[in-house]
Amino acid sequence: MPTILGQNQYGKAENRVVRITRDGDTHHIKDLNVSVALSGDMDDVHYSGSNANVLPTDTTKNTVFAFAKEHGIESAEQFGIHLARHFVTSQEPIKVARIRIQEYSWERIATSDNSSRFIGSDEVNHSFARKGQELRTTQITYDGEKWEIISGLKDLTVMNSTNSEFWGYVKDRYTTLKEAYDRILCTDVAAAWRYNWTSDDDRMPNWEKSYEQAKKHILQAFAETYSLSLQQTLYQMGSRVINSRSEIDEIRFSLPNNHHFLVDLEPFGLKNDNEVYFAADRPYGLIEATVLRDGVEPQIPVDMTNL
Amino acid sequence: MPTILGQNQYGKAENRVVRITRDGDTHHIKDLNVSVALSGDMDDVHYSGSNANVLPTDTTKNTVFAFAKEHGIESAEQFGIHLARHFVTSQEPIKVARIRIQEYSWERIATSDNSSRFIGSDEVNHSFARKGQELRTTQITYDGEKWEIISGLKDLTVMNSTNSEFWGYVKDRYTTLKEAYDRILCTDVAAAWRYNWTSDDDRMPNWEKSYEQAKKHILQAFAETYSLSLQQTLYQMGSRVINSRSEIDEIRFSLPNNHHFLVDLEPFGLKNDNEVYFAADRPYGLIEATVLRDGVEPQIPVDMTNL
Amino acid sequence: MPTILGQNQYGKAENRVVRITRDGDTHHIKDLNVSVALSGDMDDVHYSGSNANVLPTDTTKNTVFAFAKEHGIESAEQFGIHLARHFVTSQEPIKVARIRIQEYSWERIATSDNSSRFIGSDEVNHSFARKGQELRTTQITYDGEKWEIISGLKDLTVMNSTNSEFWGYVKDRYTTLKEAYDRILCTDVAAAWRYNWTSDDDRMPNWEKSYEQAKKHILQAFAETYSLSLQQTLYQMGSRVINSRSEIDEIRFSLPNNHHFLVDLEPFGLKNDNEVYFAADRPYGLIEATVLRDGVEPQIPVDMTNL
Amino acid sequence: MPTILGQNQYGKAENRVVRITRDGDTHHIKDLNVSVALSGDMDDVHYSGSNANVLPTDTTKNTVFAFAKEHGIESAEQFGIHLARHFVTSQEPIKVARIRIQEYSWERIATSDNSSRFIGSDEVNHSFARKGQELRTTQITYDGEKWEIISGLKDLTVMNSTNSEFWGYVKDRYTTLKEAYDRILCTDVAAAWRYNWTSDDDRMPNWEKSYEQAKKHILQAFAETYSLSLQQTLYQMGSRVINSRSEIDEIRFSLPNNHHFLVDLEPFGLKNDNEVYFAADRPYGLIEATVLRDGVEPQIPVDMTNL
Repeated sequence: MPTILGQNQYGKAENRVVRITRDGDTHHIKDLNVSVALSGDMDDVHYSGSNANVLPTDTTKNTVFAFAKEHGIESAEQFGIHLARHFVTSQEPIKVARIRIQEYSWERIATSDNSSRFIGSDEVNHSFARKGQELRTTQITYDGEKWEIISGLKDLTVMNSTNSEFWGYVKDRYTTLKEAYDRILCTDVAAAWRYNWTSDDDRMPNWEKSYEQAKKHILQAFAETYSLSLQQTLYQMGSRVINSRSEIDEIRFSLPNNHHFLVDLEPFGLKNDNEVYFAADRPYGLIEATVLRDGVEPQIPVDMTNL
Repeated sequence: MPTILGQNQYGKAENRVVRITRDGDTHHIKDLNVSVALSGDMDDVHYSGSNANVLPTDTTKNTVFAFAKEHGIESAEQFGIHLARHFVTSQEPIKVARIRIQEYSWERIATSDNSSRFIGSDEVNHSFARKGQELRTTQITYDGEKWEIISGLKDLTVMNSTNSEFWGYVKDRYTTLKEAYDRILCTDVAAAWRYNWTSDDDRMPNWEKSYEQAKKHILQAFAETYSLSLQQTLYQMGSRVINSRSEIDEIRFSLPNNHHFLVDLEPFGLKNDNEVYFAADRPYGLIEATVLRDGVEPQIPVDMTNL
Repeated sequence: MPTILGQNQYGKAENRVVRITRDGDTHHIKDLNVSVALSGDMDDVHYSGSNANVLPTDTTKNTVFAFAKEHGIESAEQFGIHLARHFVTSQEPIKVARIRIQEYSWERIATSDNSSRFIGSDEVNHSFARKGQELRTTQITYDGEKWEIISGLKDLTVMNSTNSEFWGYVKDRYTTLKEAYDRILCTDVAAAWRYNWTSDDDRMPNWEKSYEQAKKHILQAFAETYSLSLQQTLYQMGSRVINSRSEIDEIRFSLPNNHHFLVDLEPFGLKNDNEVYFAADRPYGLIEATVLRDGVEPQIPVDMTNL
Repeated sequence: MPTILGQNQYGKAENRVVRITRDGDTHHIKDLNVSVALSGDMDDVHYSGSNANVLPTDTTKNTVFAFAKEHGIESAEQFGIHLARHFVTSQEPIKVARIRIQEYSWERIATSDNSSRFIGSDEVNHSFARKGQELRTTQITYDGEKWEIISGLKDLTVMNSTNSEFWGYVKDRYTTLKEAYDRILCTDVAAAWRYNWTSDDDRMPNWEKSYEQAKKHILQAFAETYSLSLQQTLYQMGSRVINSRSEIDEIRFSLPNNHHFLVDLEPFGLKNDNEVYFAADRPYGLIEATVLRDGVEPQIPVDMTNL
């Protein structure tokens, strides 16, 4: 045969599972988008169409929903660990399972000031509004021995309206950009960080707390860095996370530079003292880098944040 | 001529203007997407291509940015009023101006607990994260005499995890739906409300406060209504706004019923006690209605919420 | 009651129905996205939550799929007429039905030059690639007596790389645009046209042929008009359709002016002789107008093309 | 320093360049979306914010537009090769350049049957409609010595309405799927193939012809394969390309299984003889695999098709 099969994987993508947990009248919600990708002894299905080793993608979907009942959803990471372990340990041909999860967060709707006129304030413990800010992500990979957990977030749009400069750069024949000593810095943060937890023998991180802390450090580093370049800000964000969270060894960012151009108002006899900006769509600068704890090997793929 | 020109309008759509206001070290941000549509004596440009009556769309764009400097952006509504008045009063051929604005809201990034290690907590008054929840909207229409202000919001996703039923409906040959006595009710609220302010002689509403209050009443009515149908919930939301806000005479909603189907876990020997749901994409129920103060004439177009 | 109910409608939106018809080994495909909106005696469901007059949206979904079997899908318009008639005539409380349909078109995949090496060229009569160009649309409204059929298309992107000018316009304080004597004209055509067929007593148009012809005339008028303004081009497109198709009385366009800015290459010592353009995203001019057969009343809503 | 910098890259993404070439009255169009990513000696800009080695992303944008003039756009691949070579050879700190390009294709608008009534049929050689089918893609990577060219396409939606089965698969506790002996097979093809051209000393492929042929073989293999699984179809598509095109050594596909579920019409007393389908959105099966010429090393990243 002149052609052969290379890396392959399959599964059901984007299973939208919502889990409600009732604690008396107080409800809790977990809202996930779960994608399953399995690989292993799958030559036959590609070469001949024999499905003898194929657990149907429909079954992987059913498993997601059944596990939401059997195990609950403590965190996206823990849920993905249950799923990945199941597929690898229960099906001999499956050697590796990769679970990707996106999580939507919700907040409770505040009660009415005088809700007694209505149904009673204790009733609104089942009412939620979607926060709509960042999307939380995680990717769990298991090969039967080791775990790799890469969590993160995307679409977290942040802006500094000052304390950002850009000057001292290379000028070549095609350079027309003017140096800037006070500009807006705005980006949609996409970040993916790798936990150093890899073995069932080790103590698991507190996934929920770790996420909240990583996000907090990213936001604060963005806010508190006086920026000479978006690369510098990126490194500060990554460094702050690694230095503050011992359970995280590596973090990668993909940061579009959402350009806000100062509008030239002189033709109208007006002075624009860093007040009026045009928020551009395309093109945009795109700054991507990994920050690592010294001594560790990088594992997060360069295009990881595209997931 | 066998064909004639009907209603027409033109202008620059989606001008992305960001206005920063500095109050000492504390910055404030207004982030708008402004669309201008002008109409008037525009027969010639359609029939012959003569642009003698045409203020270029590029000029309407420039005006948006210049006005952000000249007038500031107190609120989306006030900004739109400045623009609409300008176009109608400064250009004889222009008889009606319609300004549509979408507003993105931002929140401040919280300071570091120990930010003195960094740059100083007073510096973070210029750092923002986009809230990402609903999009605020407004439409200002002016014909030189009367104002019509229709404000609203869209993409505000809300969910009640209980206190929703659906039964007692018509059954025909094509009906298979089972009655539900405890279901999830979830929707993306799109609302448009009309202010009864129409004349420069009358006192203007407080646009910012009015928006916050209308949103609050919508959320609370959603949370506090024990729902027998999404139509009933819609009416309660609308009624609450009209009854609570004397400056609003009419409100229209477009509410998708974001179906959350209880997953059948019986094939796996599991019981699903309102715990595990599949969040479906399409199709979805779509419930739309106007609620009016008794005695007023409706003006909000049926497809208004598509703006 | 201080508030009352205004216009309201409900139904199942975006039912994605695909109908395969087998003519021997040759298959035919119709791929529709069908939205149902019903209105009538629906006060109770809004005021009290009583569903006694409510045919469930789930039933309207079932009806769409059942009708694809019972009636087939001859055309989107004919299919919508079957549905609208059914809802209005079979359910006493329903007074008006509005069916909106989007249609995706497919083309056959060409056979292999030497397909005998494979399975046989006669097999490929069941293989299709989605064309991906414009989306065909229609809206059928029926009140038990009269029909209103508004068909159209959207997302048909067209470009003239010359034969477009823009000059002689109004200049005010905010005008900086330079006159253009040879520019690119590019737009995403959204069009909606109204048929003058309104009664079951009259002979129905050939919906498929009418669509093809209307699209052809729009494209040809775009290509063949030497344009002094996008408004002029719009009017030529509309006029051509009305003059060529007696079954169409009114047409409305919503045409973004997809700006292609000539890039200034002088800083690099290069001359840009209408060769290199930057295709901008936002803002964009937006030109909208209705063209009517002389003497008819306009019925297409101003925001019709938002559907 | 406890943290260090890992892989990093930067540049201007999504430069929308349109190049018109005039051959007498006949115009030709190339419509690209070009993203530049550069890497090299960039430690300082991350650690200290020094931009001394940084060619601004704005300059990379200017270079894209200037090169469209200086070199023209013969093909996306050739254009990317010009750009990558320039960045690596003209800036000492830049060691690797990666250029990603998306190409939109256009077709000419057919002339009017009787266009002499208008402007003359020879005029329409400058009028185009965007085809709207697949997006053509390429990625050019250059390190100063070797080239890696990975081209492909995405969003090419194809359907077989028969000749697809799925049975004989693993059944576990969570399996409920019924075996299918005649189902619809529909997918949105995303493919990325790697050329074995790596050196300036070797003869370059004909990029335009190679693309057309690769697409043709993918389509024909899809149409002509009697499918027992989407994996089998994938392998046939890949194998056909590798076997037919000696310039291509490796190809990777990411194929969603766009489920078309046969609608159960029995509750309505109707029989559904493979006629009426519901086209589902989420979840969907996702089948991904690489097909290689025997003996070559795989280089296309697993997530390559996310570009």
